[in-house]
Amino acid sequence: MIICKVLGSVWATRKDDALSGVKLMIVRRLEVCNNTETESFVAADFVGAGIGDRVLVATGSSARNACGQADAPIDATIVGIIDELETGMGD
Amino acid sequence: MIICKVLGSVWATRKDDALSGVKLMIVRRLEVCNNTETESFVAADFVGAGIGDRVLVATGSSARNACGQADAPIDATIVGIIDELETGMGD
Amino acid sequence: MIICKVLGSVWATRKDDALSGVKLMIVRRLEVCNNTETESFVAADFVGAGIGDRVLVATGSSARNACGQADAPIDATIVGIIDELETGMGD
Amino acid sequence: MIICKVLGSVWATRKDDALSGVKLMIVRRLEVCNNTETESFVAADFVGAGIGDRVLVATGSSARNACGQADAPIDATIVGIIDELETGMGD
Amino acid sequence: MIICKVLGSVWATRKDDALSGVKLMIVRRLEVCNNTETESFVAADFVGAGIGDRVLVATGSSARNACGQADAPIDATIVGIIDELETGMGD
Repeated sequence: MIICKVLGSVWATRKDDALSGVKLMIVRRLEVCNNTETESFVAADFVGAGIGDRVLVATGSSARNACGQADAPIDATIVGIIDELETGMGD
Repeated sequence: MIICKVLGSVWATRKDDALSGVKLMIVRRLEVCNNTETESFVAADFVGAGIGDRVLVATGSSARNACGQADAPIDATIVGIIDELETGMGD
Repeated sequence: MIICKVLGSVWATRKDDALSGVKLMIVRRLEVCNNTETESFVAADFVGAGIGDRVLVATGSSARNACGQADAPIDATIVGIIDELETGMGD
Repeated sequence: MIICKVLGSVWATRKDDALSGVKLMIVRRLEVCNNTETESFVAADFVGAGIGDRVLVATGSSARNACGQADAPIDATIVGIIDELETGMGD
Repeated sequence: MIICKVLGSVWATRKDDALSGVKLMIVRRLEVCNNTETESFVAADFVGAGIGDRVLVATGSSARNACGQADAPIDATIVGIIDELETGMGD
C-alpha cells in the first residue's frame, strides 16, 4: 500500500456503469522519508476519507478487494485513514 | 485510476482477434498538481471519449472489467470522461 | 497497451516448458509525443511482427490473454502491428 | 520480490474490515548494488519483522498469497527476513 | 519479460512457508540498447541459473505460472537463460 494525501474529488457523468455511486478522490503519493509529494492519481473511497487526510491506498487487483465489487474497473482504493506513522525518523 | 488527456487513435489491421472492433485511443497522463503531461500509452475506449477530453483510465487487470470481455488482452481502459476536478488547488 | 518498436529476438535453450515454441522479441517503448525511445524488454509475439515494426504491447496479466495459454509465464505480448497513429500532433 | 529495510509502523483506526489485526509496516526499498535507499511504502507483515530488518517484500497480487486472506486489499507483504545477501560485489 | 543479469543469492531462514526450498536470486535489469544496468530485485529460479548469466525474468502474476505453485507469494521468476540476443544493434 502507498501513503497518500487526499487532494480533492473527480466528477464524471459519463462513465462505466460499475463506477456509479463510487466516490472518486484525487490523491497524491507522499514520500514519508523526506516528506515530499510525488505523483497524483484517482482512488475509489469506501472508508469516508476527507480532503487533507493521510490515507493508505491499495493498488492493482488488490484494490478491487476493498470495493465489494470484484468486477469493477477500479485499480486504486483508499483502504485506511492514517492516525499515526511511527518511524525511527521522529515523524 | 489515472487522469489522462485523449490525443488520438491507433489503427492496427493485424491484431489479436479479441481486439476486433475495440476503439483504441492514444492517451497521455496528466499530472494535475502542476498541470504537466507525462507518458503516453494506448487505452481501449468503451465510453465514447473524444480527442482533447480529460478521462479516467483504469490499468492492469482492472482494465478488463470495463470491456465486457474478461479475456481480452487489454491493460488500459478509459472508464470515465471527467466533467470536473475539485481540489484545494483552485483547479 | 504501450507502443513499441521491434528491435530483435531472444534465444533461450534452457527455459520454462510453457515458453517452448513461443517467439520472443526484444521491443523498445516509443514515446509518441516527442518521438523518443525509452526502456526495452521482451514480449511474446503471436501476430507475426517483424524487426522495425511499430507494435502494440499488452503487459501484466492481460498479456496472457493473447497467448492461448493462460498458464504461461508471459507478462508482455505483442497484440497488434500498428498501421497508423492519428493524433493532433501531425504524426 | 524487492529488498527493503523496515522503518516503522502505521496505525489506522478507520480502515477496510479485512485489514483488522494486520500488522502494517513502513518499508523502504534498498538498491543493493550501490547501497542506496529509494521509495517507501507500506507492507503487511506476517513473519514478525522488526524495525531495521532487511526484508523481502512481494508486491501485487502475489502479496495476497502470503496473508491467508486471498480477498484482503493488500498489495505488498513482507515474506522473509534476510539473513544474508551473497553477491559478486562483496556484500 | 525483462532481461537481467544474475548477481547472487539471498538467504532467509524466517520466511513464508510457500518459499521453503525456493532458490532466490538477486538479479539486475539490463538495458540492452545502451548496455547499462538499472535496478536490482529478487527472483525465484526454477531453471538453474548461475551468477553472471543473462536471464529472462517474468514479473507480476505471470511469475507464479512458472513455479508450479500458483499460491506462492512470488512476483518475479527467472524463466529462461539467454543464449543470444539478436538485434539490429550488432549485439
